Amino acid sequence: MRKRIALDMDEVIADIEPKFLDLYEREVGKRLTKADLYGKKVYHFEGAKHVRRFLFDKGFFRDLGVMPDSQEVVAELMEHYDVFITTAAMEFRNCLEDKYDWLQEHFPKIHWKNFVFCGDKSILRADYMIDDHVQNLRSFTGKGLLFSASHNMNSKEFTRVNNWLEVRDFFRAERAKE
Amino acid sequence: MRKRIALDMDEVIADIEPKFLDLYEREVGKRLTKADLYGKKVYHFEGAKHVRRFLFDKGFFRDLGVMPDSQEVVAELMEHYDVFITTAAMEFRNCLEDKYDWLQEHFPKIHWKNFVFCGDKSILRADYMIDDHVQNLRSFTGKGLLFSASHNMNSKEFTRVNNWLEVRDFFRAERAKE
Repeated sequence: MRKRIALDMDEVIADIEPKFLDLYEREVGKRLTKADLYGKKVYHFEGAKHVRRFLFDKGFFRDLGVMPDSQEVVAELMEHYDVFITTAAMEFRNCLEDKYDWLQEHFPKIHWKNFVFCGDKSILRADYMIDDHVQNLRSFTGKGLLFSASHNMNSKEFTRVNNWLEVRDFFRAERAKE
Repeated sequence: MRKRIALDMDEVIADIEPKFLDLYEREVGKRLTKADLYGKKVYHFEGAKHVRRFLFDKGFFRDLGVMPDSQEVVAELMEHYDVFITTAAMEFRNCLEDKYDWLQEHFPKIHWKNFVFCGDKSILRADYMIDDHVQNLRSFTGKGLLFSASHNMNSKEFTRVNNWLEVRDFFRAERAKE
């Protein structure tokens, strides 16, 4: 049986940070840098708590960019693994259609049978999980890969992948071991 | 740690059959009975294949009735278990908001963290699953309960629960054994 990969969306295949940086600048009047964001989320900065509320808006998730190399590497992974999209969508009722449409546009080869929109990811069963949130990896029973994002840069808890080429190399090495 | 129940929506907590019977009557001009439906789905009848297409319509899932006794028994189960709503929603992009709104209206005590909208249910990890489709129970690694629906009446493969009072009694008996 093919092994399964549970793959997160935001900050892993969907590039949400530039949108938050733009919103921060618009709302607070200052541009944050990568260095400012190390270990933090945009809405943790003073005066920016309300920026998180934009996540509830219709359309917020629809026009996000695609993370570099993710489409090519996901295509390679799909030759060897069953890839499931597992995204914490349920806090935001208005994101459901946006996320669905985004996936169909940018990852049309992933079948809808492999889409999972959930809240608490401890309900998932797979062999690998690629996620930017340590709490999702903590409750996972398979092998967790922490995808680098500004907010998680201080964590040393899981195998880190800094970008999609590192994801590709990790799984090539896994297959070489088999 | 509390045990987890993965609970299906359609034909388990959401009463979809009356709507299909009405649609069949409107489209085909004849009323089906419970006896006609034994072992089948409405859209398996001659001349009714197209009735399945209404599942794709916005609003189809929004006004379904609630299965008798399900609200009371789910409330009792939530005292003892973590109840997750696990519904195969992904074939129907337009049902996502409808299912979300329906759950918030009829089961407001179930937190959105415990909503799972998916396709292939073999991605789920829980202790119990209550579902009307044998294929979902076949791939499940916990204890599966087949909730009676017209289409599954011929199956003898899983522990059958005919209604929500039987679900209540099953779990009371499970707890008495602990």
